[in-house]
Amino acid sequence: MPQIPGEPACSVLAAPLTAGEASVLASGFAALADPSRLRLLSLIADRPEVCACALVEPLGKSQPTVSHHLKVLTEAGLIVGDKRGRWIWYRVVPGRLDLLRRAIEQPAGALA
Amino acid sequence: MPQIPGEPACSVLAAPLTAGEASVLASGFAALADPSRLRLLSLIADRPEVCACALVEPLGKSQPTVSHHLKVLTEAGLIVGDKRGRWIWYRVVPGRLDLLRRAIEQPAGALA
Repeated sequence: MPQIPGEPACSVLAAPLTAGEASVLASGFAALADPSRLRLLSLIADRPEVCACALVEPLGKSQPTVSHHLKVLTEAGLIVGDKRGRWIWYRVVPGRLDLLRRAIEQPAGALA
Repeated sequence: MPQIPGEPACSVLAAPLTAGEASVLASGFAALADPSRLRLLSLIADRPEVCACALVEPLGKSQPTVSHHLKVLTEAGLIVGDKRGRWIWYRVVPGRLDLLRRAIEQPAGALA
């Protein structure tokens, strides 16, 4: 996956972050800071790819609301969409989520 | 560490989340969705514990702003403070961060 400029090499817990590193990470966590977006992410991750048309009913939100959250997740690089005819099919981008996961990992040798 | 009611046992990527699970996780990620709070967390994690008085200068923000962010991190259960005289000393709570980390972990056998 493409490298994001300023992306931290390791954990928030390993060394004080620069302002640039903190900004990149905070925008990623902001995309996860909403229950509907977390549920959408888990619904999309449940299959290799999912049609946007199949996400409205399980989420119990309106089509415009679902579209808005899908856009936020896409802009954060957490999912990617592929337009086919009328609908967009989405899949999870594991690398971006891995970056966020590594950022809150305990560094080796840290107090448990 | 204390168990939070409704806290998910595993990853967002392993199975569709319930609304309750998504809500608990989203509030945790919301606490991480700010560059100043991530920098504070990394500054606190850099030592066994840190006096609030030592966090204003490296963050480059006002005392009230720093206090606000420390309160958000404390309420999210990510740090804990111990008042001694005039100042509060903070340390990281690893368990809460682990819960968020596990929530965005790739389940075993997932596509990489």
